[in-house]
Amino acid sequence: MTSTPLLPPPALHDHTPAYTAALGKAQGEHVTVRLWTRLPVTAVYLKVVRVGEIEHLPTRPVSLPDFAGEGQWFEAELPVHAARVRYAWELRLPDDHVNLTAAGLTHGRRGFRNWFQYLAGHVAPEWAWKSVFYQIFPDRFRDGDPSTNVKDGEYLYAGRPIETRPWGAPIDKAGDVHAHYGGDLKGIQDALPYLQDLGVNALWLTPIFVSPSNHRYDISDYRHVDPHMGGDAAFEALTQAAHASNFKVVLDGVFNHVGNEHALFQAALSGSERERSMFTWREGHDLPYHAFFDVPTLPKLDYLSPDAEQEFLAGEQSVVRDWLRRGADGWRLDVAHMIGRGGTDEGNLELHRALKAAARAEKPDAYVFGERFFDPEAALDGRGEDGAMNYHGFGLPLMQWLSGQSYTFTPSRLGGEELCALLHDTYHALAPQVALSMFNLIDSHDVPRALYRLGGDTRKLRAALTLLLAYAGVPCLYYGTEIGLSQTEQGAMPWCRESMPWNEAEWNTELRSEVQRLIRVRRSSRALQEGALRFVLQTHDAVGFVREYTAESGQAERVLALASRTAEPVALTLPSGEWTDLLIGERLGGEVTLDLGAGRLLGQAGPA
Amino acid sequence: MTSTPLLPPPALHDHTPAYTAALGKAQGEHVTVRLWTRLPVTAVYLKVVRVGEIEHLPTRPVSLPDFAGEGQWFEAELPVHAARVRYAWELRLPDDHVNLTAAGLTHGRRGFRNWFQYLAGHVAPEWAWKSVFYQIFPDRFRDGDPSTNVKDGEYLYAGRPIETRPWGAPIDKAGDVHAHYGGDLKGIQDALPYLQDLGVNALWLTPIFVSPSNHRYDISDYRHVDPHMGGDAAFEALTQAAHASNFKVVLDGVFNHVGNEHALFQAALSGSERERSMFTWREGHDLPYHAFFDVPTLPKLDYLSPDAEQEFLAGEQSVVRDWLRRGADGWRLDVAHMIGRGGTDEGNLELHRALKAAARAEKPDAYVFGERFFDPEAALDGRGEDGAMNYHGFGLPLMQWLSGQSYTFTPSRLGGEELCALLHDTYHALAPQVALSMFNLIDSHDVPRALYRLGGDTRKLRAALTLLLAYAGVPCLYYGTEIGLSQTEQGAMPWCRESMPWNEAEWNTELRSEVQRLIRVRRSSRALQEGALRFVLQTHDAVGFVREYTAESGQAERVLALASRTAEPVALTLPSGEWTDLLIGERLGGEVTLDLGAGRLLGQAGPA
Repeated sequence: MTSTPLLPPPALHDHTPAYTAALGKAQGEHVTVRLWTRLPVTAVYLKVVRVGEIEHLPTRPVSLPDFAGEGQWFEAELPVHAARVRYAWELRLPDDHVNLTAAGLTHGRRGFRNWFQYLAGHVAPEWAWKSVFYQIFPDRFRDGDPSTNVKDGEYLYAGRPIETRPWGAPIDKAGDVHAHYGGDLKGIQDALPYLQDLGVNALWLTPIFVSPSNHRYDISDYRHVDPHMGGDAAFEALTQAAHASNFKVVLDGVFNHVGNEHALFQAALSGSERERSMFTWREGHDLPYHAFFDVPTLPKLDYLSPDAEQEFLAGEQSVVRDWLRRGADGWRLDVAHMIGRGGTDEGNLELHRALKAAARAEKPDAYVFGERFFDPEAALDGRGEDGAMNYHGFGLPLMQWLSGQSYTFTPSRLGGEELCALLHDTYHALAPQVALSMFNLIDSHDVPRALYRLGGDTRKLRAALTLLLAYAGVPCLYYGTEIGLSQTEQGAMPWCRESMPWNEAEWNTELRSEVQRLIRVRRSSRALQEGALRFVLQTHDAVGFVREYTAESGQAERVLALASRTAEPVALTLPSGEWTDLLIGERLGGEVTLDLGAGRLLGQAGPA
Repeated sequence: MTSTPLLPPPALHDHTPAYTAALGKAQGEHVTVRLWTRLPVTAVYLKVVRVGEIEHLPTRPVSLPDFAGEGQWFEAELPVHAARVRYAWELRLPDDHVNLTAAGLTHGRRGFRNWFQYLAGHVAPEWAWKSVFYQIFPDRFRDGDPSTNVKDGEYLYAGRPIETRPWGAPIDKAGDVHAHYGGDLKGIQDALPYLQDLGVNALWLTPIFVSPSNHRYDISDYRHVDPHMGGDAAFEALTQAAHASNFKVVLDGVFNHVGNEHALFQAALSGSERERSMFTWREGHDLPYHAFFDVPTLPKLDYLSPDAEQEFLAGEQSVVRDWLRRGADGWRLDVAHMIGRGGTDEGNLELHRALKAAARAEKPDAYVFGERFFDPEAALDGRGEDGAMNYHGFGLPLMQWLSGQSYTFTPSRLGGEELCALLHDTYHALAPQVALSMFNLIDSHDVPRALYRLGGDTRKLRAALTLLLAYAGVPCLYYGTEIGLSQTEQGAMPWCRESMPWNEAEWNTELRSEVQRLIRVRRSSRALQEGALRFVLQTHDAVGFVREYTAESGQAERVLALASRTAEPVALTLPSGEWTDLLIGERLGGEVTLDLGAGRLLGQAGPA
């Protein structure tokens, strides 16, 4: 068994203070940027793209501590001349020259997509970087007030009487969108001590507004919390209690479509012109209006109508602003990529910019991120959403590698080399504040539970959770993951939406303790919260990356996250210095052979 | 020495007829697309991106000939639902599944940038694909009418009397932009038989309009050919003669700035409001107006002024339309990336779309391509320029690899592996018609001559020319390359602008014969003109790619282009079947050891 050396690269630059003096300086200003290298450079230039041309700017050597005294530091003043400034470093060597971009060192000049990005005047909701989220599907998390529960047959939904199920009843296909288990906001409030003990400090609630289905993505009234959830008063109580315990609460915004019972759609059906213009009507189809995947109960909003934009997104009284005013801390945006004009996604970016501007006007640190199940890169230039749900660039490929199957259970031989290349590429295509605002997850109410995909193997689940908690971006756990909640049938919905067991006898308490430890490490590590990311181990069955935060003094905090999908121990040569296993406290250093199967987090503090 | 096998990949799809029934079908239509594979597939899907979602469409097996009967064909109907449709293939295997995108086969789902692109209703100037261009810097190519020559001290330019040099006089620094050698349009016309014998069939002339400098990029009057070039009559005679000999003539359009002697700028200086609005005025600078790199003689046009847009780009009588009407076949656009509003590049894409629309309205097959010295990807979505000068994705990295130096003579150890990765990446980021319209070159009037960069090594020059003539896109030779014209001093301008020797004793006639052969192969090969591109050999010192055109019948024409930068022979295993060395006629097959130093072109026709 040969040992894989986890060496630092020969040149480094990232967004942390030793390398980038400040993020988000205003257009027209300059920012000091620095490079560290152990290459025998004869000259170093800062290259900046301006009006489509590359300019070479001079650098000067500076004195800062570094790893074993092997390297040199250079600095330069980067002109913040545009909303997004692209830059790179050129290192001249005695008989060679190389470029350092976000994609690493290359001899050739890479395309601008891979250059470093500096966002002028950009403000990110940095609290989100320091948070660990917990996703709650409210009907299934906890029933705090049985008196508000939906009653069997209380109303018709999609032509069929609504149903109820007792807490803990197995999920059944017939109850897909009809069956209510009785979870509510009071239940969430009651669970705050449990969640605090677990260590999470932010909640994302799937929809809670008035809606006939159990998932509540078909909203009848955006201005009120569903009475079956406890109504508006329960929301006020929950947010007050949550904030008092230092929790943030993010709501789910469904702005692509409304439920067909919504008053605006009903008025449109009755022929009222103003309301008709908020939807897209068409001829020659069974369904005379555009709808989400042609589901009749989900008519699509048409943002050609300025009234629609005002009502939902941008107006002083918009739904977006209203709930931030009433206590929410941000929005997760349902099918963010679909929102648009004329029945399409036209104007998507512009609408998201208007939405974010409205949210920020209401609450300067509101966190706004989109559900973009597919490649979100085009939407993430820093001007719209803060980030996106990171299915594409993290959760789906990671789980595909670990499970040997796609999220639709199609077998896959994806290897760790390709996994790391894909993660690296999607991360480095984003500006740092956007990359750190990506919403990372390994499962959700829309895809199979991670534990189920992993065949119930909690070791593999811990590997996935280790990488999740260590990755760049905002980590989110799906309710119940920590106690081993899984599902009974293959598929996604409705199977991944089991009710949360509150009888501790049903919990995997060992798993829960390990998740607690992971969360504790995450919440106490600046490197994990806002450090740079680079991959250091990429073999077929084992992967590893470093998160590194280097203070202005040159002192670095670094965490090495490692995981394997096999039981084979892996021989590694750690970068110089002493390392600590952050989960079990053991000291390590030099050449080691480690069991990576359940994931490892090794930490170190020292010079850059 | 082990032999490198040049195997075809296990699955193929490209833009040629066997795989894509037709290019440019209108939005709302469907197009039949096909996949070939020798993988043991259990199912094949066509994946299409629509409103930000991925849809899986069914495929059906079809019968077409294939390589050694090893593979299977599948086809599907691709809905052309948007201006640019993104699609990929998913191949299900007994215990795996893979995605085929423009970037090749992967286990993970790549970002949309790498998916195949279909451009709805897109029309490309296909004559350009079939052409070999020859770039002429008119003052230095041939003096056909000494009576029109500039006279020593005839006028002042930038405060200094204009100078003349006798034909063949060495370039000197003092004559940088001042020295005129006397080349003119009559000279070009006289040289048409020479050019026809060489085999080229399209000319790009750097500026010919009224202008005081020898390069004529500081234009005083866009409506007239410089009298020292022979005036308007000489242009009419040249284009008539050229067209009669089946040559196309592309002009150089300088639309970012004008010369300071231009009447519009003079009127602006005199205070006329309409003309003042065509430039960008500023306070607090030595120069009170925006100019190209702050050169006072090159005031930048401001396209905030609708008059400027009408006058130069889009109007019925615009410069763009005027010269197409008067016989030009297209435009090379000087510093295309800089054109914009308010002294910046704002509105660049929109202005280029307006420019191309105007050009096409005047001449439906006009070829419009931009000088974009740096990464042009963002500009090339098919709606603006047809293509761009391919410095970034071809000429600069290729010459850097072959010469071991950048174009500024900075040493570089760029290897063939990275070279191929860079070329592959930039090629596959473009839609096929755009990639085939890229204007490829190894040198020009703006960078050092290739032969000089290669230390006078004509073997290496032939390697560069082999790859140039074989690459995807429109090849262009810089005047004199074919007879071994080089330069005397290190640098770019003015050294790379020697006058063309017409005394055959000064020619490298062997080189010229080889260039003729290369051009002949290019002009007779549909695979080289419009085939797909894939890299098959990528070692440190040797590279190779295949161009392949597969007809609807499944019959393929393929050319293998190979080159090395060392004298070492390279052992290769050719793909099955018999191959012919297209330059020397020799038959080859199986495992061969070849000298690739001067470049090789091997051809084959057979089933896909």
